[in-house]
Amino acid sequence: MEKVKIAILGFGNVGTGVWKILQENRKEIMKRSNYDIEVAKILVSDINKKREIELPKGVLTNNIDDIINDDSIKIVVELIGGRGQAKEYMIRAMKAKKHIVTANKLVVANWGEELFKIAEEENVLFYYEASVAGGIPIIREINESLTANRIEQIIGIINGTTNYILSKMTNDGISFDEALKEAQDKGYAEADPTSDVDGFDAVYKLAIMASLAFGTKVDHDCIYREGIRNISAVDIEYAQKFGYTIKLLAIAKEENNKLELRVHPTLIPSNHPMANVNDVFNAILIKGNAVGELMLYGKGAGDLPTGSAVVGDIISILRNNVKPSDLKAISGEEDFKEVKNSDENESEFYIRLNVKDRAGVLGDTAKIFGKNNVSITSLTQDVVHKEYVLLAFITHKSSERNIRESLKKIKELENVNEIESIIRIESFN
Amino acid sequence: MEKVKIAILGFGNVGTGVWKILQENRKEIMKRSNYDIEVAKILVSDINKKREIELPKGVLTNNIDDIINDDSIKIVVELIGGRGQAKEYMIRAMKAKKHIVTANKLVVANWGEELFKIAEEENVLFYYEASVAGGIPIIREINESLTANRIEQIIGIINGTTNYILSKMTNDGISFDEALKEAQDKGYAEADPTSDVDGFDAVYKLAIMASLAFGTKVDHDCIYREGIRNISAVDIEYAQKFGYTIKLLAIAKEENNKLELRVHPTLIPSNHPMANVNDVFNAILIKGNAVGELMLYGKGAGDLPTGSAVVGDIISILRNNVKPSDLKAISGEEDFKEVKNSDENESEFYIRLNVKDRAGVLGDTAKIFGKNNVSITSLTQDVVHKEYVLLAFITHKSSERNIRESLKKIKELENVNEIESIIRIESFN
Repeated sequence: MEKVKIAILGFGNVGTGVWKILQENRKEIMKRSNYDIEVAKILVSDINKKREIELPKGVLTNNIDDIINDDSIKIVVELIGGRGQAKEYMIRAMKAKKHIVTANKLVVANWGEELFKIAEEENVLFYYEASVAGGIPIIREINESLTANRIEQIIGIINGTTNYILSKMTNDGISFDEALKEAQDKGYAEADPTSDVDGFDAVYKLAIMASLAFGTKVDHDCIYREGIRNISAVDIEYAQKFGYTIKLLAIAKEENNKLELRVHPTLIPSNHPMANVNDVFNAILIKGNAVGELMLYGKGAGDLPTGSAVVGDIISILRNNVKPSDLKAISGEEDFKEVKNSDENESEFYIRLNVKDRAGVLGDTAKIFGKNNVSITSLTQDVVHKEYVLLAFITHKSSERNIRESLKKIKELENVNEIESIIRIESFN
Repeated sequence: MEKVKIAILGFGNVGTGVWKILQENRKEIMKRSNYDIEVAKILVSDINKKREIELPKGVLTNNIDDIINDDSIKIVVELIGGRGQAKEYMIRAMKAKKHIVTANKLVVANWGEELFKIAEEENVLFYYEASVAGGIPIIREINESLTANRIEQIIGIINGTTNYILSKMTNDGISFDEALKEAQDKGYAEADPTSDVDGFDAVYKLAIMASLAFGTKVDHDCIYREGIRNISAVDIEYAQKFGYTIKLLAIAKEENNKLELRVHPTLIPSNHPMANVNDVFNAILIKGNAVGELMLYGKGAGDLPTGSAVVGDIISILRNNVKPSDLKAISGEEDFKEVKNSDENESEFYIRLNVKDRAGVLGDTAKIFGKNNVSITSLTQDVVHKEYVLLAFITHKSSERNIRESLKKIKELENVNEIESIIRIESFN
């Protein structure tokens, strides 16, 4: 069987996973790719560092030129991550006629267009399945399985850290801070958890999926973003009473050539399959105009799941099933699609107020909602303390503008102490 | 843009869906396939029948030769279904160098090997995504997305009719007969519901998936099969008390080159995403040795979802991404894998007895289980009537043989009126 040489840039968690899969499933991979894959070089910063895996002599290098200048290396797997050298190395590798597989969401979200263009010019393939949702083959799904569809919506739980935190808060009744601490202890959250808990990670992944699905460049700066730091145990409990579970969702919808793009904590019906997506699992629901609702569920991170996506991409390249231009078959439509101002976005809302225990406060609040065309479908109130009452509403579908206008007025009511929570609802309709 | 002519055999529900998708999404499909698809011929038995859709003159024909002998037709889409002429027509079309897309699970499950061989000999492509789970792209998932994995398990809800019936029984507390009637009224179940409710439909689909995933011919006659006719409201209620939901599962597992293949009602943990797969939705969970658990959820039937899979296959053929041999990349391993005798299969069990309300019956029963190495994890008992008591057990993992031996002895106990239910449990471990 013919040998093919590849190089891996970076040998952390995912790189180790890729190495393990190539060893463990070698027999299967040979049959499926028709090649015997040899990892000829691995780029690391310190070649003398003690590692979990013993590598053959001469495989490790700290010099990218050893890879770029080696014409026998056909595929470069970029697993350095981050914005730093990764992009430069990929461009150099493509110019040296090497195919690329990357797991780098930052680079694809920021410079995807530029990189795809270079790939086409150089007639090499650029695969990035692992950049979104780890082991879940969502890129292939959009690019190859759903080609008969106009995609209308993508709704995903695509950040494992926040899903772990929210699952723990929901199932164990602990606070955000306790759950974050647990996630950090288990290695699911970083010391500085900003990128995950404030929604940045989800924003990058949503930008990549939306670009592909809607055939337009999506600037991640245009995505509305709200993290989960303010989610309280009280809200989780109230949500449950109303029949909902709180998840951090990444949402992209297209209607009349306009895009709605947002990442925020969301109440979803507890009987929807997505409500049972717990711990570090991810799930992505796609709505196509032919297929209807299609959901993928799996592990969004980890050495082997992400490695599964990376090695799958390597095998696809070896099978050489596609032309570079096919890979942007959907995004290639190059239609311009405007991103809606978030004021225009519509959804149902969960709103919780802290009010004084006085007659008339409910009536005054309801009146303001009514004046602003916000109608209420259900409400609950609890006297929590002698001093105040918690009042929680679920609204019908309303525009964000109308909600905001209502709340501005409600805040001014003498008997309203505070607007404690405003969380959107997704009913999957 | 270049035109390509295709023919459709059969113009029922799915055929109409395919036609609609080709019209409605024409612009997108042209961009993604690089062809303008023209449905040149549609084979029907009665060309004068009144139809929902008005077709251009000359498209309908009742003569297969009009299609086989027309060299300008490049792809034949077989949607006749059943065992009858479908197979013969597909073979004739392949011998006339036409590619095939089919939704026919019966033909693929029974004669897949023969058909794939002819496709390879004739150098044409044979696609059958729509034959399993309608709109869910499970064939592509196994064949293309999970190539880096050794697949260990496939567990699916792959029959919409039974899932509708069980969902209704669970959520509305109605009986099997009432739920079946409702399914028939809505067109989800046929007048003779045998194929669905007795598990035959699921058996065929499981055979197709297992052949592909485990790289071995799977004879559908070797699949253990049990339908849902005996599921009672009492069992659904007890299952819920124990934290489970009842679903008809199709299960295929490989361990040490031995296969475990079975279709039967199953208790699954109510907090697993599969427990929330309701109504006619399907879901398939694949466990790969790299990716871990990966689940796909979507519509397993219907004109547009199934049409989405059919049109997706047509586009794949037009993109010409694969060689005929790639399509059986996984099944091509041709390893022989023995199917285990169902006696050797192991799972946890839910067992419900109807016993006399006398002291000692629980002790006697527990003793027999113990002697046969069946250990009990929980039990519940209810005095339902003056005459008898219902006693329900959940066991640890046990072999089917040990369970059967135990129950043979328990049945002989004087105080046991009847063994009313024996249902397997799947814990997804």
